[in-house]
Amino acid sequence: MDQNRRFLLARRPDGEPVPEDFSLVTQAIPTPPPGGLVVRNHYASLDPAQRGWMDDTESYMPPIPLGDPVRATTVGVVHASDNPDFAVGQWVMGLNALEDYSVAVPGGFTMPIAVDAVASPSNYLSALGAVGLTAYFGLKEVAKPQPGETLLVSGAAGAVGSAVGQIGKIMGCRVIGIAGGPDKCRRLLDDYGFDAAIDYRGKDHAALVTEITAAAPDGVNVVFENVGGAVLEAEVYTLARNARIVLCGLISEYNATEKHGLQNLWQILARRATIHGFLIADYAHRFAEGGAQMAQWLSEGKLRADEDVQQGLENAYDAFMRLFSGANTGKLVLKIA
Amino acid sequence: MDQNRRFLLARRPDGEPVPEDFSLVTQAIPTPPPGGLVVRNHYASLDPAQRGWMDDTESYMPPIPLGDPVRATTVGVVHASDNPDFAVGQWVMGLNALEDYSVAVPGGFTMPIAVDAVASPSNYLSALGAVGLTAYFGLKEVAKPQPGETLLVSGAAGAVGSAVGQIGKIMGCRVIGIAGGPDKCRRLLDDYGFDAAIDYRGKDHAALVTEITAAAPDGVNVVFENVGGAVLEAEVYTLARNARIVLCGLISEYNATEKHGLQNLWQILARRATIHGFLIADYAHRFAEGGAQMAQWLSEGKLRADEDVQQGLENAYDAFMRLFSGANTGKLVLKIA
Repeated sequence: MDQNRRFLLARRPDGEPVPEDFSLVTQAIPTPPPGGLVVRNHYASLDPAQRGWMDDTESYMPPIPLGDPVRATTVGVVHASDNPDFAVGQWVMGLNALEDYSVAVPGGFTMPIAVDAVASPSNYLSALGAVGLTAYFGLKEVAKPQPGETLLVSGAAGAVGSAVGQIGKIMGCRVIGIAGGPDKCRRLLDDYGFDAAIDYRGKDHAALVTEITAAAPDGVNVVFENVGGAVLEAEVYTLARNARIVLCGLISEYNATEKHGLQNLWQILARRATIHGFLIADYAHRFAEGGAQMAQWLSEGKLRADEDVQQGLENAYDAFMRLFSGANTGKLVLKIA
Repeated sequence: MDQNRRFLLARRPDGEPVPEDFSLVTQAIPTPPPGGLVVRNHYASLDPAQRGWMDDTESYMPPIPLGDPVRATTVGVVHASDNPDFAVGQWVMGLNALEDYSVAVPGGFTMPIAVDAVASPSNYLSALGAVGLTAYFGLKEVAKPQPGETLLVSGAAGAVGSAVGQIGKIMGCRVIGIAGGPDKCRRLLDDYGFDAAIDYRGKDHAALVTEITAAAPDGVNVVFENVGGAVLEAEVYTLARNARIVLCGLISEYNATEKHGLQNLWQILARRATIHGFLIADYAHRFAEGGAQMAQWLSEGKLRADEDVQQGLENAYDAFMRLFSGANTGKLVLKIA
């Protein structure tokens, strides 16, 4: 390996991405710009948010330019450096791309990480990274659940959802998870300690409302929403008065050309509920605090963080699509080296 | 007049109400139940919320039973009393119905009002009633606008909307109103002191977004939503980061058999906006405080409260439908006696 394989966005997907939307090219390994560095990527995070970055629409981050590699958070090792703060061989984490080698510029989002104390450097892409911190701050600072309240998590078997449910239990909530299929529902109960699990598959609106209501007879106080669409539409009919919905993700809608959204806003009004748009980037100044808490819970065995590690840049497309087929069990990570 | 005309809900409307959904019957004037009273209604409030009560769906208040008169807030005079706290001839306000005479029971929502200091007893159905208090508490306690922020009001020429805009100006906001038609837009600017007025009629989504953006180049900080549907859908594309949407009403959707809702929730997430379901009933314990502030602003000439007074129980249907055709200018009130 002395060349740089790069997984490029060749055209903008129309709905669900297809292999032709991407291309894998091989280029020369870059050299550090003045004050910058080159990172040898070892693991890349695969996240639903990347699907949004592939569209040419306004968002909280600019679209990925066509012909650029697909933006991704990675962990890796400094390969070459023109910056005295980063020595060659140092492990770092940063917002890079799906490629063997990434250029990091001064002042960018690159930080050193300590890998000796963790099971794998990839943990910085799961429990100790944006995923774990999304669960932590979204629940603690946005939803602010009280002990005894009922917390409903959609996409509950996913990386964020499984962390949210476990943190909800630590905070004293009754926790209900919604997931797709009996295997995932079993994992919610057996692996993550949820109080109840609901399989949304094959259920129409009325059946889903009935099942959530049965699991939350006093109503749902907090929804941690990762899915949107028909799942959210059912959830709003089960809200207790003054319920809070943390709008963290809408994975059912990212590939949809017609958005479902939330059709009956009247339920929000009549129940005096609130919907909070939430992005973990707003809590960057508190990552150290959140990371320390997550690391402590992990070490105490109070928190279980599963990773679904897929192998090889050449499999980037198939790996990414696991997010939308619901195939991944745990945080989806691509091992690059 | 020695009989009681009553405007009954004969069947539940399917979409837009038609005359056949109601019937006007004449019955004997009731007598007070033990501890209760009979109120001679003089004015009744006509509100979009009544449309919701006509449906057989769960809400914050039970549906109007078929065969009962249409529930309405009224002001009137005590006609007969079995309660020492309410003398015959006393003016009262309460949740009654569209009928000449209503029975009020002990412990219900009936309170004495002082009519000498106001221009008309009907003011208790507009600026000094739920309409004015909805504007006051929705803005002050839910949206919490800061001086210099941009406030966008939909249904701005309506009873609540025009009060919201004027209170927003008092609070130091830049205020933009959305209304239907050039006459209403002119009233926003000339009568209510809005900084900008946008006519939504004949504009598609892109045109509406463009026009709001032109009026709010730094983005909208607070939306006071009375309309929903396509208007709300456009508004969310103009939100500044951390914007607050007060969800007060959804008049575009009450008669719709297919709800529009909010299709692109991603805009809420990406902009870290919040949506707050709001019902004035939650502030009942602070009505005296809010009413005193509204009365002061009225007397100081800082606030203008227009009423659209329609005549006669026999015209209740036509009067009510003015809410949905956009015909009313100011708070819609039905004069009964």
